[in-house]
Amino acid sequence: MGIITITTDFGEKDGFVGTMKGVIWGIAPETQIADITHEVPPQDILTGAIALWRAAPFFPAGTVHIAVVDPGVGTKRRPMAARIGNQYFVGPDNGLFTPIMFDAWKNGQEMEFVHLNNPDFWLNNVSHTFHGRDIFAPVAAHLATGVSLSDLGSRFTDPVELDMLQPERTDTGWQAHIAVIDAFGNLTTDLPASMLETREGLRIRIAGREIDGLVESYGHRQPGDLVALVDSENYVEVAIVNGNAAKTLGVKLGDSVEVIYA
Amino acid sequence: MGIITITTDFGEKDGFVGTMKGVIWGIAPETQIADITHEVPPQDILTGAIALWRAAPFFPAGTVHIAVVDPGVGTKRRPMAARIGNQYFVGPDNGLFTPIMFDAWKNGQEMEFVHLNNPDFWLNNVSHTFHGRDIFAPVAAHLATGVSLSDLGSRFTDPVELDMLQPERTDTGWQAHIAVIDAFGNLTTDLPASMLETREGLRIRIAGREIDGLVESYGHRQPGDLVALVDSENYVEVAIVNGNAAKTLGVKLGDSVEVIYA
Amino acid sequence: MGIITITTDFGEKDGFVGTMKGVIWGIAPETQIADITHEVPPQDILTGAIALWRAAPFFPAGTVHIAVVDPGVGTKRRPMAARIGNQYFVGPDNGLFTPIMFDAWKNGQEMEFVHLNNPDFWLNNVSHTFHGRDIFAPVAAHLATGVSLSDLGSRFTDPVELDMLQPERTDTGWQAHIAVIDAFGNLTTDLPASMLETREGLRIRIAGREIDGLVESYGHRQPGDLVALVDSENYVEVAIVNGNAAKTLGVKLGDSVEVIYA
Repeated sequence: MGIITITTDFGEKDGFVGTMKGVIWGIAPETQIADITHEVPPQDILTGAIALWRAAPFFPAGTVHIAVVDPGVGTKRRPMAARIGNQYFVGPDNGLFTPIMFDAWKNGQEMEFVHLNNPDFWLNNVSHTFHGRDIFAPVAAHLATGVSLSDLGSRFTDPVELDMLQPERTDTGWQAHIAVIDAFGNLTTDLPASMLETREGLRIRIAGREIDGLVESYGHRQPGDLVALVDSENYVEVAIVNGNAAKTLGVKLGDSVEVIYA
Repeated sequence: MGIITITTDFGEKDGFVGTMKGVIWGIAPETQIADITHEVPPQDILTGAIALWRAAPFFPAGTVHIAVVDPGVGTKRRPMAARIGNQYFVGPDNGLFTPIMFDAWKNGQEMEFVHLNNPDFWLNNVSHTFHGRDIFAPVAAHLATGVSLSDLGSRFTDPVELDMLQPERTDTGWQAHIAVIDAFGNLTTDLPASMLETREGLRIRIAGREIDGLVESYGHRQPGDLVALVDSENYVEVAIVNGNAAKTLGVKLGDSVEVIYA
Repeated sequence: MGIITITTDFGEKDGFVGTMKGVIWGIAPETQIADITHEVPPQDILTGAIALWRAAPFFPAGTVHIAVVDPGVGTKRRPMAARIGNQYFVGPDNGLFTPIMFDAWKNGQEMEFVHLNNPDFWLNNVSHTFHGRDIFAPVAAHLATGVSLSDLGSRFTDPVELDMLQPERTDTGWQAHIAVIDAFGNLTTDLPASMLETREGLRIRIAGREIDGLVESYGHRQPGDLVALVDSENYVEVAIVNGNAAKTLGVKLGDSVEVIYA
C-alpha cells in the first residue's frame, strides 16, 4: 500500500490522467492515488511547481509525487526521479521540483537524483509525446512497490532549477510579489510571515490600494473588504472577504505587493 | 478500510483537495476517498448542502462525509462533527448539513453533534484559513479509523440550520421552486413526487411556459421538447430533451415552478 | 481488489459520479476507481467512445469499465455488459463501445454481450433517469467481485454500432479526419501511422495550410510552429508547438486532413 500523487497540465477532459492510473495499478494494484491538480496552464512549469510544493509536505513519508508539465517531451531533456527528504518525485528535469529542493536545502534534508535511463521500469512501447503514461507512471509505481532509486537510472547532481522571484528587503519593509492566485481569487505572496520583523502597524500596498494591518481570518471583516492576512502556509496574503481580489484589483502572478513597516 | 467523501467550494485547480487526501492517508492509509464536488460556487452553503444531501444516502453505513464551504473559517463559528443515522458528517457548523438533518428528523433517525474542540485529533499547526486541511480532514480520518465521536469534542444540540425554501400547497396544486440546476441544465424542483395527490392531468408552469403532463424519461419525447418528469431522487423535474432547460428558459435557483391539477 | 473506471458526460459539479462510487463501494468496498473523463459533451456518444477506447488498453486484465453517455436512458434501449478480450464493459447499448469492439475484431479477441435484465444485481429502486447509479454502478461492482457475466442477464449478439469515419486511400496518399481534439488543442487524426507506406517526404494539408514532413516530438521545433507527428497511440497528429492548433486553425472534429506522398 503506497501513495502516489499526480500533478499535470493535462486537463480533465481527455482521459490522460485516468490512463496513467491504469498503468500504475497494473504494476502496483493497491496504490492510493491522489490528484493534486490537472489544471496547470499548458506548459506553465512554475505554476505546476508551486502547486506541488504546497501540497507535498502534507503527504506521509514514502509518498511518490509525479509531476508532468513537459514542453520538452520527446527531446533530450532528462526524465528524472528524486528522493528529497523522505518523499519521492518523478517527472521531467525542467525545474518542476525547484521550490521543493529550495526548502530541502534550507532544512538540511538529503537529496538524491537519478536520470531515468533504465527502460526495464518503463512500458514496453514508449511514445514520443506521452512520457507521463509510458515512463513516469510506471517508474512511480515501481518506486511505490519498493524498487530503489538507484535501480531506475544513473545518479546525477545538477537538476535544472527555475528562476523564482524572491521578496526583497527595502528601506521601509519588503518588496514582495504575487506567487499564487487561488480559485477564490485570493493572492498569496512570496513573503513568508516569518520574515516580518513585526506584525504590528503594517501597511500593504497593492495595485494602487493600501491595506492597514493584518486580520486573523476572512470572517473578521465584512464581505467586500480588502484585507491582508497570513495564509495557511504562513505567507502574507491579500484577499477580499467573500470576494475575488484578483478580479477586483486586476492583478496577475508576479505583480508587486509592498509591505511597509510603521 | 473506511470511506470518506469530500464536498467543497475549493475548485480543482489549486491542489487544496489533494492536500486533504494527503492528511487523511497519513492517519488512515487504507481509506477510500470519493470526491462529491469541488465546484460549489464560492461561499454558497446552500448549494453545497444540497449536493451532499443528494449523494450521501448512496454511501454505506459508517461513511464519513467532509463538507467545507466555510466563509466563517477562522472566526468563532464552531467546527463540528455529527452522527446522523449510520453515517458521519464533519465540517463547519453553518448549515451545510441542514437537508440531511431534516430527512433524519422525518425518518426518526438518531442524531448526535459534537463541537470539535479537542486538538488532539487535529494537525499540530492549525492555520486560520484552511480548516479543511488542519481540522476536518484529520478528524474525519480518525473517525474512519474508529475513534468515537465523543472523543473529538463536547456534545451540543443546537446546530445552525439554513432557511430552505419549501413548496407550498395552493388552491390548484403546488407552488414549487427550482432547487438544483445540474450540468445538463435540467431543473429539479423542491417538490417530492410523493406529495402529488395525482400524477394524471398535471400542468407545470415555468418561466411563462406550460407543460402538459409528466413523461417517464427524456427519451420518450423528441430532442428539443420541454418536458416534466420525476427525477432520480423522486422530485418533480423540468428538462429539455437533449437540451439545456436552464439556458433556454433563462431561469435560476429559487425561481417558481407551478404545478396545477386538472 | 478489482479496478473500475468511469467515463460519463455528467460533468464534475453535481456529485453524480461521487454517488456512483458510493454505490460501488457499498457492494465492493476494496475496489480501485479511476475517472477517465466526465467532460464528454452532453449526449455525445462518439466522443465518449473515443475517450474510453484510448484509455482502456492501459488498464490491467479484469478491469471493469463503466461508460454512461445515455440520451436514451429510461427508454427501451438495452442496458448491457460485455467481455471484450480480458476486460469488462458496462453501459447503455448505444455504440459507446464501438471502437473497442472494432479493435477486438481486428485482433481476433473474444467478445460476449449480455442484456442487463436481471434486477438482482441492481439497486432496489431504479429511477428512469439515472441508470449510471441504479444499474451500471452496481452491476460493475458485482463484476469486480467475481460475479459472472451470464448471471447478469441474457446473452445477445447484435450490439449497436456507431458509424465512424474511416480514413480513405486516395491517388496521392490518404484522406483522413480529425478524430480527437485534446485539451492542448492537438489534433489526432483517424489515420494510424502503421497505414503509411512511408514516413519520408510526406506533406500534410489541413485548413488550407501545408506541413512538410513529420517531426519526432513537439520540442524538435520552435514554439508557434505548425507540425505533424505520430501521437502516443500511433496515429498521425497535427499540433502547434506550445500552442493550440484547434483554435489557431479554427478546425473541428471530423474536418479533413490530407496526407500526400512525395
